[in-house]
Amino acid sequence: MKVRELMDINFLRLYKDYSVEEAIQLMHRKKRFSAPVLDEEDRLAGLVLSVDLAVVEDRSIPISEVMYPSEKVITVREKDPARDAVIKFVKYKVVSIPVLNEEDKIVGVVRSCDIIKTLAKLYDIPVYKLFKILERELKGVTWEELMEASAIVTKNTTGEDITPEEYEKRIRNTTFGQALWACGGLEKFFAGLIKIGEVVIARKVARFARK
Amino acid sequence: MKVRELMDINFLRLYKDYSVEEAIQLMHRKKRFSAPVLDEEDRLAGLVLSVDLAVVEDRSIPISEVMYPSEKVITVREKDPARDAVIKFVKYKVVSIPVLNEEDKIVGVVRSCDIIKTLAKLYDIPVYKLFKILERELKGVTWEELMEASAIVTKNTTGEDITPEEYEKRIRNTTFGQALWACGGLEKFFAGLIKIGEVVIARKVARFARK
Repeated sequence: MKVRELMDINFLRLYKDYSVEEAIQLMHRKKRFSAPVLDEEDRLAGLVLSVDLAVVEDRSIPISEVMYPSEKVITVREKDPARDAVIKFVKYKVVSIPVLNEEDKIVGVVRSCDIIKTLAKLYDIPVYKLFKILERELKGVTWEELMEASAIVTKNTTGEDITPEEYEKRIRNTTFGQALWACGGLEKFFAGLIKIGEVVIARKVARFARK
Repeated sequence: MKVRELMDINFLRLYKDYSVEEAIQLMHRKKRFSAPVLDEEDRLAGLVLSVDLAVVEDRSIPISEVMYPSEKVITVREKDPARDAVIKFVKYKVVSIPVLNEEDKIVGVVRSCDIIKTLAKLYDIPVYKLFKILERELKGVTWEELMEASAIVTKNTTGEDITPEEYEKRIRNTTFGQALWACGGLEKFFAGLIKIGEVVIARKVARFARK
């Protein structure tokens, strides 16, 4: 995923010659805490923060006199991996980052809430869906066998006595994110799934041997 | 994980009787775009945004006259699952959320950058570590067998001819997040790992049968 797919192209454009008063009114109306300042060619000239503009005494001066100059502004390129934006949000604790194209023009803004939305999506995948993949990939294993094995692994790991039906009901209502918090991390979640895969195969082999 | 583990307890405390001017100066100094307003008992009285305070004409009035009242403020409880905070950031597009304890007192603030940091951590787990779990859980399978199987699955899936050594080198430099972007999502990443597990077992059985 690229920054381009995450950015908001309907961002607030403030130009260098806007007065502090104009900028304050626009940021108030659009509820923007920070906004990029553009030059005549739509290139990044700087950035203003609502908290800074609020303390400027003479509001008739242009924002170019009080903005952070472009070289101090954190930016990303539209073709950068989305991950680069994530790293910058964490490192610089900003709430939005201007996005530049190859000609250094501002083409969008990435906001922290968009990043959270994208990252959170992964957590929303139902665990049920992952079990369906397990069933499909372990060709020849039935859904019932998978649920039986899962109930066994749960009992062995947590001591909890759960029926295959209860297990199925549980994973239907659980997201990947909830499962991660519940088992204590990706590594443990992952180890649990491998155990289930092993048990289901072991039981199949044992049943086959008895025949 | 609970909200308590994510929140910042050194947040900016604005009290109801502070003037708009005082609030503006404090928010400027601490670079806070929004701040909870507290009553005498440290309970939530309301919330102010820097963009709104900036347009108030008479800065001598108390912030209680211009704040959002408490019933309009998005909050979380310190004992809520962290996930609840994530959902609220996405839904309401805010940059910070006051955290209340059981007595309705404000005990902290969760910020969007803290949420991003926590969510991003998952993505930083090296894929190498997941393979190490695969090796440990599939008892009796060696690391070399695992890398050979991985190279075979890669060739079958993508057509790319890669040696087991190159594969090992690649996963040493890849995080879970990068792998997800690369294969196109958790489901595909997950299916790939199951395939590798199957191939490694199939090769082991075949070798055993030849003996």
